[in-house]
Amino acid sequence: MIYSDIPSAQTLVLFFKSWGIKNIVISPGSRNAPLTLGFSKNSNFNCFSMVDERSAGFFALGMALQLQEPVAVLCTSGSALLNYYPAVCEAFYSDIPLIVVSADRPKYKIDVGDGQTIRQENVFANHIGYSANLKQDVSHFPETIQQFSPEMLMESQEDIQAYNEKEIQTALQVASTKRSPVHVNLPFEEPLYGQTKDLQITAPKFDQRDLVDVETEDYGTYASVWNSSKRKMILVGVNPPKSVNTEVLNKLAEDDSVVVFTETTSNLHHPDFFPSIDSIIAPIEKSANRQQLFENLRPDLLITFGGLIVSKKIKAFLRDFQPKQHWHVDKKKAFDTFFSLSEHIKTDANTFLRNLAVTKTGDQDYNPYWKKVRDAYELKREDYLEQIPFSDFWAMDQIQRAIPKGYQVHLSNSSTVRYSQLFPMNESLAVFCNRGASGIDGSTSTAIGASIYNDTPTILITGDLSFFYDSNGLWTNAARKDFRILVINNSGGGIFRILPGKEESEEFTTFFETTHSHKANHLARMYGFEYQNVSSKQELSSALKSFYNASENPKILEVFTPRLKNNKILLDYFDFIS
Amino acid sequence: MIYSDIPSAQTLVLFFKSWGIKNIVISPGSRNAPLTLGFSKNSNFNCFSMVDERSAGFFALGMALQLQEPVAVLCTSGSALLNYYPAVCEAFYSDIPLIVVSADRPKYKIDVGDGQTIRQENVFANHIGYSANLKQDVSHFPETIQQFSPEMLMESQEDIQAYNEKEIQTALQVASTKRSPVHVNLPFEEPLYGQTKDLQITAPKFDQRDLVDVETEDYGTYASVWNSSKRKMILVGVNPPKSVNTEVLNKLAEDDSVVVFTETTSNLHHPDFFPSIDSIIAPIEKSANRQQLFENLRPDLLITFGGLIVSKKIKAFLRDFQPKQHWHVDKKKAFDTFFSLSEHIKTDANTFLRNLAVTKTGDQDYNPYWKKVRDAYELKREDYLEQIPFSDFWAMDQIQRAIPKGYQVHLSNSSTVRYSQLFPMNESLAVFCNRGASGIDGSTSTAIGASIYNDTPTILITGDLSFFYDSNGLWTNAARKDFRILVINNSGGGIFRILPGKEESEEFTTFFETTHSHKANHLARMYGFEYQNVSSKQELSSALKSFYNASENPKILEVFTPRLKNNKILLDYFDFIS
Repeated sequence: MIYSDIPSAQTLVLFFKSWGIKNIVISPGSRNAPLTLGFSKNSNFNCFSMVDERSAGFFALGMALQLQEPVAVLCTSGSALLNYYPAVCEAFYSDIPLIVVSADRPKYKIDVGDGQTIRQENVFANHIGYSANLKQDVSHFPETIQQFSPEMLMESQEDIQAYNEKEIQTALQVASTKRSPVHVNLPFEEPLYGQTKDLQITAPKFDQRDLVDVETEDYGTYASVWNSSKRKMILVGVNPPKSVNTEVLNKLAEDDSVVVFTETTSNLHHPDFFPSIDSIIAPIEKSANRQQLFENLRPDLLITFGGLIVSKKIKAFLRDFQPKQHWHVDKKKAFDTFFSLSEHIKTDANTFLRNLAVTKTGDQDYNPYWKKVRDAYELKREDYLEQIPFSDFWAMDQIQRAIPKGYQVHLSNSSTVRYSQLFPMNESLAVFCNRGASGIDGSTSTAIGASIYNDTPTILITGDLSFFYDSNGLWTNAARKDFRILVINNSGGGIFRILPGKEESEEFTTFFETTHSHKANHLARMYGFEYQNVSSKQELSSALKSFYNASENPKILEVFTPRLKNNKILLDYFDFIS
Repeated sequence: MIYSDIPSAQTLVLFFKSWGIKNIVISPGSRNAPLTLGFSKNSNFNCFSMVDERSAGFFALGMALQLQEPVAVLCTSGSALLNYYPAVCEAFYSDIPLIVVSADRPKYKIDVGDGQTIRQENVFANHIGYSANLKQDVSHFPETIQQFSPEMLMESQEDIQAYNEKEIQTALQVASTKRSPVHVNLPFEEPLYGQTKDLQITAPKFDQRDLVDVETEDYGTYASVWNSSKRKMILVGVNPPKSVNTEVLNKLAEDDSVVVFTETTSNLHHPDFFPSIDSIIAPIEKSANRQQLFENLRPDLLITFGGLIVSKKIKAFLRDFQPKQHWHVDKKKAFDTFFSLSEHIKTDANTFLRNLAVTKTGDQDYNPYWKKVRDAYELKREDYLEQIPFSDFWAMDQIQRAIPKGYQVHLSNSSTVRYSQLFPMNESLAVFCNRGASGIDGSTSTAIGASIYNDTPTILITGDLSFFYDSNGLWTNAARKDFRILVINNSGGGIFRILPGKEESEEFTTFFETTHSHKANHLARMYGFEYQNVSSKQELSSALKSFYNASENPKILEVFTPRLKNNKILLDYFDFIS
């Protein structure tokens, strides 16, 4: 093995090795050479090259999401580091162990006018699990340091080494156990390219302490609250596939006093669950009998798990019609999303629901009543799909139906993930979306990163603004031949035509909808993707038949939908099912 | 005029109006609707639409750089804001008044699981002149606030209004007088689209206090140090054109005990100055007589002004061979770049040098000696250009010669700006480069932003990595027909072949040089630029003849140079002139 001759660079590489951190996404630079060399010349690591750090951050985040383990990004000094911030923030709110490693200049060269030199320490302070600010090795100081900055020599190399090891240990601990993004900043002095086979430091031991379930949870008390609650609602946000066992799901489904609302991103499926929340709630919002219907839907006990909820309608409903109790089940954190949080139950949902010994008490009409509503709108939706013209709504239904079984599905923000809630998603699919910060800034990179090691192929479904925003995500030679992108191009931010505030004015189309006439064909050609576009029902249906066939290159299918019609078709749907 | 019905949104718009802040670059969103409406429906403002906030930030920065006045960016809540950080950091180190305005969620909706909701307050803490965290208007609280967050109602609307006005005032004051980026964060509650013609608040008065020159500077003392210094060196970094009068330049040129080193980005020209610092220093570094030659070049008094210095060689030299005194002349700040700063003279360079009444004392051989060296390498450079093959080196010389008089020239980091130092730049040109953080992340956006209002056309000269990195900078319909981009495409980060550490290995080409085979033609077609490429001396010379001719669309000329030859040709140049 070849290492940098700089002790702190060796130390980081050895820690990663002993902790089993294998994947490193590297952006080009010179200051980070000690680490680029250490990772790329060491067979323990799989290194990926991405030039744009913003895309590199999301690429690594996608990989960490799929592997459920820490993945690192590495960049040079300067503003390069700041380009990771969108991915860091998404990782912060989505509990993804993204490890940001930045090379820095020596401290005495900061704010003296050197190039690519900024204030890197704690730069992600608002959204980071831990910031490890390593110290420069005394053994690697230039001779002139005595003159420029003698105070930097006050510590011994042993003290610095001990400090750096402790900092790295803490950062990795936080990333692994709290599933938080962390930042490790390493100041390096020139020369940067020195290599050695002889380690100057001892390899650290792997020392990870996992978050322990709170074993003392009083399941009896929880069970008695459950049993005395007439109506129980379970609401699941972003959640990894296969995280809850079938018997647990069946137990919930069997109790008619329970309604389970699942979002597409929850990856939970059962014939008795309610997968299209907005199709239930939108008709109530429009009803003359609104107050009464919402009272009928209101649970006494709300149990949530998983990450952020996409549906704005369920949030508005539960904030207005609050449950008596709201328990959130998660090892790490509990957001008070409905301003009624009563318990944070610190274990995983499967453990909690399995151990909760409850009886079938409560309002046994609760679930059957809403199931009838659900069955009715599902029939009406089929009717509606028969009669509408080609549009986002029609296309999204077709697209979701056509995804081959077992695929990994990535949805971009914001229209795409909202539309996806309205249609069935096959239970064999694993569905993901960056819902932590819910930005449009990294969907493509995330999907490509998540596809690399997946057992099955990956499809990204994205809107045009998200797709063009993160076009640098395509700038990688790591995309698999079976990777697929479906761009729904409605010539702008279709979401803004749906949100309240829409008006037919030049200001609206320019600054809200941001209409454009760009197409994905040029990017496809530039980055070696096969490309096809469609703009009618027949063309889309036909294209979907061969889109997933094996190919020599990854593929993009661009679906042009009518900008001015889409919003009306969506809003009319809610009237139609009401 | 039409305004949002939210008082804080009205207040910001009115402040901008009274302060004469005219240009707003808006990215799409809904939370920022109160401000998007306020700006776009008000004829006092010129609004630009850019989807990618990273590019929007640099576009605004370029415009502020060119106009020498504050320019604002506006975005919605969430990670959108974080994408401004690279431009904010560049503005911070380059003293550019970039005003970042972000819409935020109400405080009680942060960290409760709402979409596009992050911790926006003070998010740029490490690199910002001022962060104004406005308070939500009590008058625009939802009815339910009493229940969710009653403590938010403790303040009266009058107090909140007074607080918000003070915060905005401070932010604008800092942006205008300290030329710093500032951040104004405004939390808005729904409904967001309410409009009114009736102002609820009184328009603020314009109240800017400029930074005052320190009038008490003791010019007599400075003059006596000057007069007693045998050798005076003046070194100028990034500096706006026409900032020093000709008579001041002549005065410096006439004194043979003075050597004036200028970088391309200094925009200072005089036949007696030294515009190619590295061509002087590189041969000394290689000389057997290194120590003595550097001692001959070492000044007793070093005076610097302007922003960051590009040349690493002059930094290394002056750190090793420090002057007895180093004065930095700038109203705002002084970096101790050479670890020998003795005075920060708080006025502008023109004022200082004009008022410095000095005599021609000192070593009158200092300048003539180095001028002979300069004249010698200039002749040798011509010889060298005659004999080398087509390459970055040859192309850059041709490109700089061919720029029409009077153009605005933008240079990208990092090879481009370094190469540009080696060749003459016509004094009629105004030259810029993002040297604050020296990133490759926003050169194209900066150049397009700076071109909008310029009297003359703009040419961007960029490397391939910079160009592809910031390709979203092209996503605007604001680019002028006469805007020109010259992409020097050497298939990767050519700089890494020049820096020490180069090796011919797969790791090197993948993770340092990051070689690729991308071309700019696809992006040109996508964004409506005319496109041409060349890959020989003859083709380049021929293309440059018509490249600047009037055209219906902006143009890109891509110059393919030989990846594996460029570095040797550059390094051989320094041997050739030695």
